[in-house]
Amino acid sequence: MDQKLQSYIEKLNQLDFQRMYNGDFFLTWEKTNDELAAVFTLADALRHLREQNISTRIFESGLGVSLFRDNSTRTRFSFAAACNLLGLAVQDLDEGKSQIAHGETVRETANMVSFMADVIGIRDDMYIGKGNKYMHDVVDAVTEGHADGVLEQKPTLVNLQCDIDHPTQCMADMLHIIHQFGGVENLKGKKLAMTWAHSPSYGKPLSVPQGVIGLMTRFGMEVVLAHPEGYEVMPQVEEVARKNAAAAGGSYRRTNSMAEAFQGADIVYPKSWAPFAAMEKRTDLYAQGDSEGIQALEKELLAQNAQHKDWCCTEELMATTREGKALYLHCLPADINGVSCAQGEVEASVFDRYRIPLYKEASFKPYIIAAMIFLAKVKDPQAALTALAQRGTPRWRG
Amino acid sequence: MDQKLQSYIEKLNQLDFQRMYNGDFFLTWEKTNDELAAVFTLADALRHLREQNISTRIFESGLGVSLFRDNSTRTRFSFAAACNLLGLAVQDLDEGKSQIAHGETVRETANMVSFMADVIGIRDDMYIGKGNKYMHDVVDAVTEGHADGVLEQKPTLVNLQCDIDHPTQCMADMLHIIHQFGGVENLKGKKLAMTWAHSPSYGKPLSVPQGVIGLMTRFGMEVVLAHPEGYEVMPQVEEVARKNAAAAGGSYRRTNSMAEAFQGADIVYPKSWAPFAAMEKRTDLYAQGDSEGIQALEKELLAQNAQHKDWCCTEELMATTREGKALYLHCLPADINGVSCAQGEVEASVFDRYRIPLYKEASFKPYIIAAMIFLAKVKDPQAALTALAQRGTPRWRG
Amino acid sequence: MDQKLQSYIEKLNQLDFQRMYNGDFFLTWEKTNDELAAVFTLADALRHLREQNISTRIFESGLGVSLFRDNSTRTRFSFAAACNLLGLAVQDLDEGKSQIAHGETVRETANMVSFMADVIGIRDDMYIGKGNKYMHDVVDAVTEGHADGVLEQKPTLVNLQCDIDHPTQCMADMLHIIHQFGGVENLKGKKLAMTWAHSPSYGKPLSVPQGVIGLMTRFGMEVVLAHPEGYEVMPQVEEVARKNAAAAGGSYRRTNSMAEAFQGADIVYPKSWAPFAAMEKRTDLYAQGDSEGIQALEKELLAQNAQHKDWCCTEELMATTREGKALYLHCLPADINGVSCAQGEVEASVFDRYRIPLYKEASFKPYIIAAMIFLAKVKDPQAALTALAQRGTPRWRG
Repeated sequence: MDQKLQSYIEKLNQLDFQRMYNGDFFLTWEKTNDELAAVFTLADALRHLREQNISTRIFESGLGVSLFRDNSTRTRFSFAAACNLLGLAVQDLDEGKSQIAHGETVRETANMVSFMADVIGIRDDMYIGKGNKYMHDVVDAVTEGHADGVLEQKPTLVNLQCDIDHPTQCMADMLHIIHQFGGVENLKGKKLAMTWAHSPSYGKPLSVPQGVIGLMTRFGMEVVLAHPEGYEVMPQVEEVARKNAAAAGGSYRRTNSMAEAFQGADIVYPKSWAPFAAMEKRTDLYAQGDSEGIQALEKELLAQNAQHKDWCCTEELMATTREGKALYLHCLPADINGVSCAQGEVEASVFDRYRIPLYKEASFKPYIIAAMIFLAKVKDPQAALTALAQRGTPRWRG
Repeated sequence: MDQKLQSYIEKLNQLDFQRMYNGDFFLTWEKTNDELAAVFTLADALRHLREQNISTRIFESGLGVSLFRDNSTRTRFSFAAACNLLGLAVQDLDEGKSQIAHGETVRETANMVSFMADVIGIRDDMYIGKGNKYMHDVVDAVTEGHADGVLEQKPTLVNLQCDIDHPTQCMADMLHIIHQFGGVENLKGKKLAMTWAHSPSYGKPLSVPQGVIGLMTRFGMEVVLAHPEGYEVMPQVEEVARKNAAAAGGSYRRTNSMAEAFQGADIVYPKSWAPFAAMEKRTDLYAQGDSEGIQALEKELLAQNAQHKDWCCTEELMATTREGKALYLHCLPADINGVSCAQGEVEASVFDRYRIPLYKEASFKPYIIAAMIFLAKVKDPQAALTALAQRGTPRWRG
Repeated sequence: MDQKLQSYIEKLNQLDFQRMYNGDFFLTWEKTNDELAAVFTLADALRHLREQNISTRIFESGLGVSLFRDNSTRTRFSFAAACNLLGLAVQDLDEGKSQIAHGETVRETANMVSFMADVIGIRDDMYIGKGNKYMHDVVDAVTEGHADGVLEQKPTLVNLQCDIDHPTQCMADMLHIIHQFGGVENLKGKKLAMTWAHSPSYGKPLSVPQGVIGLMTRFGMEVVLAHPEGYEVMPQVEEVARKNAAAAGGSYRRTNSMAEAFQGADIVYPKSWAPFAAMEKRTDLYAQGDSEGIQALEKELLAQNAQHKDWCCTEELMATTREGKALYLHCLPADINGVSCAQGEVEASVFDRYRIPLYKEASFKPYIIAAMIFLAKVKDPQAALTALAQRGTPRWRG
């Protein structure tokens, strides 16, 4: 076995992550530091094996069920890639095509699609108070189904974005940071600015900023959340961020000044989102079927957005970051001035300069998802990695 | 090899099912008793191997083509699971996306999608006189294509529901009954009530009640079909049921009383369906493109349904069954009072009490489909099972 | 190893196709004669192995991304079959479902879907000057992505039909010709008539006639393109055809008489297409969003088509071909008189007589696609074929 793989295995040996076996992945703050470290390490190990053209198939057959309640290209492909890397075939649960629309209960559907499912990936980020709850309902259903002998295995849930967190995105962002800074041990005291930015479109999910402050406060960094007044995120996630920062020896604070957030920052993440309170209101309007109310709210929100066109990641602002060279992050696609819109989240020259790092940031997502699945499905991951390396089946006989 | 697998193989050794090799599965009553027993036995054997984490892949590559002309979650997933279990990738033939809409003939399309297809699964249950015929057209086309040297293999057809029968559903229901009663030998003289039940929705397919009376009359049971006047099923399927019952030493009869059907029943299957004559009329109206006529018919049928709201599987009725404990069956999803509708097929407390058995009933479908494919594709299934067990490739390296 | 496979390997040994490794397949005329011969030979070799039930999986995992910007059954299934044959899972990039509609740039999307993609298959034939360009943009993006370390592998592009060429179709047509005539060496001097034919539908792509004259002029045949005045194809492709013919010692010419083209022909390919100039105009109208202009153009084109109902492949015309027995080709589906339309491209009796050969013609497409992928992904195809034969894994344990 090569030294690099050996070092990953040794790292895993030092971590306690046994609770992840047969588990699920809902929110990063429900996981211990060791568990998160295990995901990062395993993601690196799986990538390393693939780069060495060594197959990491641990399934000879099995299904990865995907349910996307919102449009998605990158997360859809990341999930498909992760499943494929481990040997699972993806089967989409398309609510349009299926009988779910006919009023089936979640419990029943969850079991009906899971007879041979090893993984269920769900994206449900549209309505506050609904997405994460739905995922729990699904997991409760299949856990019960497995206990009752209906399912021969309990499929593991991977949260592909809910109303609260976007763990696969934020973990990929974080692994990118770790690689860029040469290790998690170098992040102590670094300043990270998660800031709102203007977008001409309306109602972008809160799960990215929430996921970022909920995760990135755990590594001793000085995390600042910046947004115009009225663009608050969920208070309970801010509470998580505060506790994380205290425990990790870093800090978390909020400001209404983008300039203040960028000042001296090592990492910036400027991105639009919708106000939490407005999203909550929208959820209620949808529940009441009040389409007039929804339209009125949308107009109102677009007008509100338009008042903050100055919240843009400009060259000028970038120049105020540490040595003018902060690492620029985005979950993509970004609203780029003069490219995808007139006035958006970022100036074209800034975006362009960081294009390659941004693509690399995105490239971690399939491995993060694969690692989450691996840790839920494999009892002894270190032994499994060793066995894969020893088996040495080429992924590609090129 | 473990004893259980050995017992399945010994059972297969006693059965004559050689005609299934390279065959297709249209209607259960076109199969001999031995052939049905082979499907049940193989379904159990495949499930047993999977439970032992032994891969049952018999295909290294190959496609399972699916064509669903009606919405479907459970059958779609069951087909996908069965294909995956055996090593086939599913490719959906979506008539919306394809050029079939452009007027291609069935013969041509059937061949064009089958160059590397090992299986074709079709659901086409909407129009009387069409679905089963369409499946035969497809099979004739690919049989000819194979004979002509166009196709290197003849894909096997699995009827995933037609206008006449729903064999994968009814075989799964039946395997559930066999397991619940501890073997087919214990079914002699048992009373099974296939009864209509009220639904606020309109036009549910006849293939389930027809499939049930066409199959379950073959095991020596006393089968009763109950429905309000005007909800007759296809006469030719009733004729099959009568002949089956005579041959098996059981009985088949029809009644217009749900109470009479439930009285002392060992098994009850209360489920809504549309009248055969109305479905025939609808088929003609569609053929004529008479949308006014269709709307008028729908209204009429809903009004007709509404006259029979008392056809519900209540606690009161359940209490009249054998020891008040008849096995309750349903193909799911059911119309449950106060859950999925105001007044439907079953009271919520009855449904809830049978929820786990209902899910188990559904769990047999992927294995039934896989067994049908296996028997059509493998010349010596006993040898193949032995080889799979000896190979012992783990399905999942967990 | 069997003799037939040995002969394919020996043929490959005589060809120079090293440049195809890590390459892409855009247009046939960008490939050398040796490279085309390598595709044909490898397609035959892969088919031979499959017929011998020997698995040709060279990928243990990996994705084949497909993007269809136009409806497709046969090409979609051919691509899926080819990917499956080699071990890749297909993941559709459905622009409806994805965020591409939200204004993402091609460069970004191409990378985002390619993290674990080994192949990208694109059909984009609707707009003149766009389809082929789009494919190049995608290839440039992933080539750059690979060079930048974003992608661990460069996916290979397979042109599944663009505005200029339809290489997988025309190569399949050509391999069919080679088989029918007993080898490429027998084609010298044979007369091939690529002729326009009437269709009641409008706007069929030019890529088939263009692909045919661009490819089939390379084998020493006398190629005639026939169409009514006003149905010209792209001038630059005609230039390619002329040069090809000169180099191959055959000929290329154009006529406005279907009768003249059929006279003494060995091979006929009567098929409708839209005038190049009209398609160019339509592309501009779409770009300007001029829907009135588009409707007017469609009317105009249908009226123009209707003036040429006599351009039909009749029995009478077929009788004028070499011994009345020219090989009739079509990419399918054809517009058949009295079957799929009143007056179309071909008389029903002609089509029917050639039905089996037409299906065989189509059956080469999955193998052509698989061969294109194989040559781009395998450094030493001869060694790989030998290894596959020696490994001898059954595709199907039947």
